[in-house]
Amino acid sequence: MENNEKKLQDLTALCKNRGFIFPSSEIYGGLRSAYDYGPLGVELKRNIMNEWWNEMVYMREDVVGLDASIIMHPQVWKSSGHLAGFSDPLVDCKICKERFRADKAPTAEEGEDIVISFPDKGKAKAALEYIKNTFDIELERKGKSLHGAKADHRGYKCPCCGASGQFLSEERQFNLMFRSFLGPVDPMEEIAQKIEQGKLQDLSGRELREEIQKSVDPSTVYLRPETAQAMFVQFQNIQRTMSMKVPFGIAQIGKSFRNEITTRYFIFRSCEFEQMEMEFFCKPDTAKEWLDYWKDKRLGWWQKYANTPENFKLRQHEESELAHYADNCYDIEYNFPWGWDELEGVASRTDYDLKKHESGSGKKLQYRDPETNEAYHPYVIEPAAGATRGVLAFLNDALCVDEIPDSKGVPQKRTVLRLHPRLAPYKVAILPLLRKEGMPEKAREVAKMFFESGINARYDEVNAIGKRYRRHDEIGTPYCLTIDGETLENNTVTIRDRDTTKQERISIEEAVQIVRDKLK
Amino acid sequence: MENNEKKLQDLTALCKNRGFIFPSSEIYGGLRSAYDYGPLGVELKRNIMNEWWNEMVYMREDVVGLDASIIMHPQVWKSSGHLAGFSDPLVDCKICKERFRADKAPTAEEGEDIVISFPDKGKAKAALEYIKNTFDIELERKGKSLHGAKADHRGYKCPCCGASGQFLSEERQFNLMFRSFLGPVDPMEEIAQKIEQGKLQDLSGRELREEIQKSVDPSTVYLRPETAQAMFVQFQNIQRTMSMKVPFGIAQIGKSFRNEITTRYFIFRSCEFEQMEMEFFCKPDTAKEWLDYWKDKRLGWWQKYANTPENFKLRQHEESELAHYADNCYDIEYNFPWGWDELEGVASRTDYDLKKHESGSGKKLQYRDPETNEAYHPYVIEPAAGATRGVLAFLNDALCVDEIPDSKGVPQKRTVLRLHPRLAPYKVAILPLLRKEGMPEKAREVAKMFFESGINARYDEVNAIGKRYRRHDEIGTPYCLTIDGETLENNTVTIRDRDTTKQERISIEEAVQIVRDKLK
Repeated sequence: MENNEKKLQDLTALCKNRGFIFPSSEIYGGLRSAYDYGPLGVELKRNIMNEWWNEMVYMREDVVGLDASIIMHPQVWKSSGHLAGFSDPLVDCKICKERFRADKAPTAEEGEDIVISFPDKGKAKAALEYIKNTFDIELERKGKSLHGAKADHRGYKCPCCGASGQFLSEERQFNLMFRSFLGPVDPMEEIAQKIEQGKLQDLSGRELREEIQKSVDPSTVYLRPETAQAMFVQFQNIQRTMSMKVPFGIAQIGKSFRNEITTRYFIFRSCEFEQMEMEFFCKPDTAKEWLDYWKDKRLGWWQKYANTPENFKLRQHEESELAHYADNCYDIEYNFPWGWDELEGVASRTDYDLKKHESGSGKKLQYRDPETNEAYHPYVIEPAAGATRGVLAFLNDALCVDEIPDSKGVPQKRTVLRLHPRLAPYKVAILPLLRKEGMPEKAREVAKMFFESGINARYDEVNAIGKRYRRHDEIGTPYCLTIDGETLENNTVTIRDRDTTKQERISIEEAVQIVRDKLK
Repeated sequence: MENNEKKLQDLTALCKNRGFIFPSSEIYGGLRSAYDYGPLGVELKRNIMNEWWNEMVYMREDVVGLDASIIMHPQVWKSSGHLAGFSDPLVDCKICKERFRADKAPTAEEGEDIVISFPDKGKAKAALEYIKNTFDIELERKGKSLHGAKADHRGYKCPCCGASGQFLSEERQFNLMFRSFLGPVDPMEEIAQKIEQGKLQDLSGRELREEIQKSVDPSTVYLRPETAQAMFVQFQNIQRTMSMKVPFGIAQIGKSFRNEITTRYFIFRSCEFEQMEMEFFCKPDTAKEWLDYWKDKRLGWWQKYANTPENFKLRQHEESELAHYADNCYDIEYNFPWGWDELEGVASRTDYDLKKHESGSGKKLQYRDPETNEAYHPYVIEPAAGATRGVLAFLNDALCVDEIPDSKGVPQKRTVLRLHPRLAPYKVAILPLLRKEGMPEKAREVAKMFFESGINARYDEVNAIGKRYRRHDEIGTPYCLTIDGETLENNTVTIRDRDTTKQERISIEEAVQIVRDKLK
């Protein structure tokens, strides 16, 4: 196993065993790529989102927040292009049953010899037989692969077994948005009724589809596939009620949903995910400089919390990669265990969205400059980050195994999560050395001081002290305060640093202030 | 118009005009009962949720957090009873076209004379005619109402016009959960294909429904109608990974979705809403005392932020009101403009849920006491609050019109939102008296001090100072700092209190600390 693959596995195991992230509905066998954030994961995610909100909203005069509903008017998605363009061409491989996206499949030029491969000889043998019976084609088997077929005009092959041409199904369009139904009529029930009443019997295929649409369409709504559109749709309400002057931004954190065909890499690509997006409205001729500003600002934000800042980088999109609404775009990428991958996009969206919603809604979505009285469509720079991906990146950045001396001075391996103290779920662990001699009572007093000062602290009395230190190393708690015999004499505690494992004695009165200073 | 009705209208108008709450997708005509939280609304909601999380999670040793996915395994809802029991009997009134829940409709005893009423004579006349033509029944019209019909055995009447008996449709079951489809197959498409291929033609009604179910069921998922179930489903993962000892709680804040038939009272009952729920697991014989503890604790929490605490109260459920899973329950009610209504439920759920999920999943969901080694199903006390309803309650509690003297000492009416400072969207407004003489620059320096200290501040230079004070009164900003000519001489500013409108001069150096102390 490659080191990097192992790292993702270690991370997934740590997340599950230490209360960061569990498979959703695990007792029911889990649900495809859905995850729940446990007691530590919820704090890490909250911390990341709060740091983002602080920097993007609270620390700035020119950005305000929004929290829009997840189910928006279906017309929003028509105007934005998500209903028409947000669909993938899907293909089924008839040989290995893989379902894949045609536009992401490996290419195979027409007429090219293709090799169909399997994990073992048995499977290859069975496929040989199946192809002979079903397609009446004789291929040649060499060990685990079949030879003798050729790619057809479609120009791609199955990413799993390599089959092409007639071994693949037709392409079907599949929309990535989750469909749901609003209102007290169940379209399934209505369709059933129509069939029952014989209303659908003598219709042609096209007419049948139209009839079904008629039942389904009036109540169809979609779960938002991104938070961004709400900022465009509410642009004027917000600009007016808050008297915002261009340039200004609207920020939102929230869940989005995409019915992804391929989910993978733990929480990296899942159907339900959390975004941190901001739309920054500016004068068209300043869009270029604001794009520069935001790409650097955003990269700096990620790096500020990182142990290895060079694992975060900017990558400018090639002309050919640009989405239809963008005239320029930078990805902020992180060096994940499987390689560099997207964490945030900083896109220059021009006035594409405002104009689309203007023509879709019939409502003017312009900004009137109060000085010049000129009305125009602002351009938009959009830093759109994945909070869920941020969790994974920061966990990966933080996880390491180092060596520390045990009580006899012998070096021992330990797992430590070097999370930035502001991101760490618990800032401080409060540990009575023993569960007797008044230590738990004293420790609870200290814990209470932290609780009341708004610093997230964990009282922990389970297991021997060394084991507790290791546990808090593993969950990233930057400081451990230990209440011992001396505490009861002179009101001091030891404070242990997660990264250096060094301990110092400090007085209890100073403890809150010392930890608070370290968190700044 | 009644005073109370007017208050809800005033509140709705203020929310929209001042950036608290907008109708969702408003430029597209809005979406039934969906709302977006604007720049001030998002802060108010965040503040309420953070205060809850602080008290329920951070300040306690015995409660940890969770953030579960909105789309859970469908089996969860089968076990919990939501699939079978979470549906409402719906009835349509054939006279006034109202659609209503049979179980919530006003009663009408069999044989009782019913009066069908309309808003005006014209409508009554038209209905008289319609009833004659459609049902062949002659009723007598007296002004705006029709007389002479009788209620039938069903025992209820239309809540809108009062019609009963044959004037109502059959009851239909309607499930309150939002249905969606996970995975790359669109069941609508599949059904259309089946019809096209003639597969559904010769089937009976029951068989047709079954065929449709076959297409729909494998990918059907539901949006959670409550956050609570995730705490039961993840009970063991959390108890084990966090070494929690009973009694302990799991808290969660998040969105839930109910396809409500009747949405009303602004954000009070909407299809998409935010919950703050906690499941507290305890020994069965301590459930009674924990219920007492939590009901008082939770009532106290609401009252802590209220101007009029007596508008929050506990109401114990009657035996007949109790949900099937509860053996006792208190509602925390608020005196809304339309009367007392539910804000939070504190329910004693016994071991109902853990046992249901245990039998549904086949996984043991017991707790083993580490001291006695005894395994048992803990009982559960659930304080489940509506964050969205909390927003409405606190806004209503805060909104008032009082009189303050203008610059000539003449009393003038003003609208003021007396939000608790910790809930207020902005804690402080930073106002340069004039937009010249270096005042904006100085004011921005002061604003920066607040930005950096983590206190949400608003720099505001638009309009004359009096108008700005009124604006911040209206949005609940507890303190206004004004930078004037004197500021530039001696580095002092005035601080104005929202509620008293009194002003004092303080030095800029102290400003952050003074505001911070007021927020404690």
